[in-house]
Amino acid sequence: MTKEFLKELKKICPSGFIDKKEELLVYSFDTSENLEIIILPLAAVFPKTALEVSAIVKLALKHGVSIVPRLKGTNHCGGTKPTENSIVVNFSKMDKIINIDKENLIVEVEPGVVIGDLNKELDKLNLFFPPDPSNLAVSTIGGAIALCSGGPRTFKYGNTKDWVINLSVVLSDGSIIETGKNIAKNVTGYNLTSLFTGSEGTLGLIVKATLKLIPKPQTRLLTLCYFDSLKEAAQGAKNIIQSGLIPSTLDLIDKTTMCTIEKFNPSNLCTDFEAALLIELDGFFECIQYENKILEKILIESNAKKIIQTKNELENENIWKTRRSAFSALAQLKPSVVTEDIVVPKSKIVETVEFIQELGKKYNIITAVMGHIGDGNIHPNFALDFNDVIETENFKKLKDELFNFAIKNEGTLSAEHGIGLTKKKYLPLAIEKNALELMQKIKILLDKNNIFNPKKSL
Amino acid sequence: MTKEFLKELKKICPSGFIDKKEELLVYSFDTSENLEIIILPLAAVFPKTALEVSAIVKLALKHGVSIVPRLKGTNHCGGTKPTENSIVVNFSKMDKIINIDKENLIVEVEPGVVIGDLNKELDKLNLFFPPDPSNLAVSTIGGAIALCSGGPRTFKYGNTKDWVINLSVVLSDGSIIETGKNIAKNVTGYNLTSLFTGSEGTLGLIVKATLKLIPKPQTRLLTLCYFDSLKEAAQGAKNIIQSGLIPSTLDLIDKTTMCTIEKFNPSNLCTDFEAALLIELDGFFECIQYENKILEKILIESNAKKIIQTKNELENENIWKTRRSAFSALAQLKPSVVTEDIVVPKSKIVETVEFIQELGKKYNIITAVMGHIGDGNIHPNFALDFNDVIETENFKKLKDELFNFAIKNEGTLSAEHGIGLTKKKYLPLAIEKNALELMQKIKILLDKNNIFNPKKSL
Repeated sequence: MTKEFLKELKKICPSGFIDKKEELLVYSFDTSENLEIIILPLAAVFPKTALEVSAIVKLALKHGVSIVPRLKGTNHCGGTKPTENSIVVNFSKMDKIINIDKENLIVEVEPGVVIGDLNKELDKLNLFFPPDPSNLAVSTIGGAIALCSGGPRTFKYGNTKDWVINLSVVLSDGSIIETGKNIAKNVTGYNLTSLFTGSEGTLGLIVKATLKLIPKPQTRLLTLCYFDSLKEAAQGAKNIIQSGLIPSTLDLIDKTTMCTIEKFNPSNLCTDFEAALLIELDGFFECIQYENKILEKILIESNAKKIIQTKNELENENIWKTRRSAFSALAQLKPSVVTEDIVVPKSKIVETVEFIQELGKKYNIITAVMGHIGDGNIHPNFALDFNDVIETENFKKLKDELFNFAIKNEGTLSAEHGIGLTKKKYLPLAIEKNALELMQKIKILLDKNNIFNPKKSL
Repeated sequence: MTKEFLKELKKICPSGFIDKKEELLVYSFDTSENLEIIILPLAAVFPKTALEVSAIVKLALKHGVSIVPRLKGTNHCGGTKPTENSIVVNFSKMDKIINIDKENLIVEVEPGVVIGDLNKELDKLNLFFPPDPSNLAVSTIGGAIALCSGGPRTFKYGNTKDWVINLSVVLSDGSIIETGKNIAKNVTGYNLTSLFTGSEGTLGLIVKATLKLIPKPQTRLLTLCYFDSLKEAAQGAKNIIQSGLIPSTLDLIDKTTMCTIEKFNPSNLCTDFEAALLIELDGFFECIQYENKILEKILIESNAKKIIQTKNELENENIWKTRRSAFSALAQLKPSVVTEDIVVPKSKIVETVEFIQELGKKYNIITAVMGHIGDGNIHPNFALDFNDVIETENFKKLKDELFNFAIKNEGTLSAEHGIGLTKKKYLPLAIEKNALELMQKIKILLDKNNIFNPKKSL
């Protein structure tokens, strides 16, 4: 049966088919903690067209095989890990920028387009796609849509759902639908686009997306600003928000993160301070100069101890490189780094970060905290060794406490990483029974045979 | 049976219950062309709490009576018109602003809150809710969410869906769910909030909403700018968009609209020109001054013939009053004014407006065109007399041509007014079969007895 299935599958994607166990291993895990037993997919396929994807879905449906959609595997929650009797459908060969329409400020892309590459192309036309899932060099638009990711620019620009206006989706019967039109303002039927965005590949397979664009902001200016305490940094952020300034980025970095970056990627960060804010203003040069004066005044009044500002795009790039290197630096401390993703009301940032730092001490796990503080979105990074049984057990307890704390404080489980496999057990804490049941009914409506990324998200 | 039903219904809402025919007449129509036969609802009720709404739904379900949710009845598509064997549930007594949370920049409101009133309250705290469905004095947040309306500020701020982060919804079994959390960045389960937003009361009844806010922009500056031709006005708008300026409003007004306003509400508009752009910049005073210099330069280069700019908030208010008076002025020309709402790619604005003007001539119907040109969203206003059989027949043909044109030009049927009753026949043109079927399945999933606003939207 499986043999027949694989034979048929190979026919659909002859040039992009893997079924050797040693080659499949790489598709058996992602960036999550990977504590579950390794499950190899039956095969990994690399379709090149929507029709191939449709044929794969029909075949999988016929054989009762499930489909795990995947791109670069940077999912932090096991959302791209194979489950039993599944194949991985890897969209990395569907990576064309189909059409950049400068006049209408839209772009049509295939799911495998890397967001950093997209912005390089857009840049040539002075256009800009704001969502930035931090890891620009690998993060794809398909992954960003599956998770409705946001990144550091969400405070000003919103997250992926605010920029996706139309999707081509392969449904579980193999049919292909357009969820909308290539038009941003549209109330014609239900909003299917937003239903698929953030559904973690559980409702359909995205084979094309139309995204809104804006003209590239003329300039950007980064401020790195140090504080003696988390409280003062958070108060600084609050003062910025209430001033009417709308920075494109308003991020928090704690001392542990800065020290670790300095240790492995020396970048002239000042490691004497408890916390730093990373603030990016973007827009017309003259406006930024004015807004920057307001910003400086607020920061000084908020008791900032050291304020560093960029003078040119090279300096901007360097600071962003430093910020983006946090994960790789942390990964040098221990064999594994787990990045979590909770969100709480902005007013509860300080107590949340302090709680996380205490959790790290309580369970003796290296804990570094970053976060998109403007959105109340905190990313604690935990460096640990999963070969250490005690550390692993402690980490499980730590996670339980972390998510319970988020929920108890009117927050929730994920702002941009999704639920995947690793957070499923917390879902009933975050979503009340009736709403969760409705979501499950929608899943069944769209995928009654449960072939799309089963066990994930809901 | 009906008698029993009405008796029970009155028990649920003793202080807000109408079943006298002469009093029900007012709930039998809305702002649409009302060409259908008048259908009186069995009753109109005015619940005060979510629990009352839930009880109404349970009772209606038991008796097989359908529910037409309604607020101020400004729906342009018959979306709030009663259908057979229905009651009107009027949410105007659920009009409390529950909680303004300045620190977290959110507000919780009941559906009957008038958006103009909301912004007056927010103003006291220097806060701002951007979506503006033009008729601020009557438009409610419940109506805005039901239609995902936008208004003139959509170009910069997006439409209602971009500002709604959580809804309390009464489902068709009477249960009440929360669709999200009071947090803007959230990927925890499917996006139910966006599914209900814009669903025209067909999936559930919204009894509470949490909205995002921003600090009130420090200042705004309006420019009214005249052109000798539509083409030049549209080119001017295009030049503004491509410059990187992001005005809060980028609207078009045609000559017929201006002349009609001047005739009935003299406002010093210059009626010698073919078209005008209304442009609002908002933000910090100093930034607006700089952006205004860019704007002026663009307008002059775009061959603007006359540029008028406001000097203070009183002048701003006066221009907005003039703009908002267009509908009432047009209503003095003929017994009825029908405002349509199509959307086309920005690049097709000129040919669309010219086509609409030609349509008016072809069918001899007074045609005035306004539109949120920055979004490709055009509102043609048709003044006519539905007692005139020929005019009525001509109008039907005109509408067919209008919507066919929008679809053929990669546009769609509605940007912010919805589909309601009056556009349903065009829906299969706008949404392909598979997607429409999926939407219909979602409707059945959520409302299998079809009690919520039947015959509307889908």
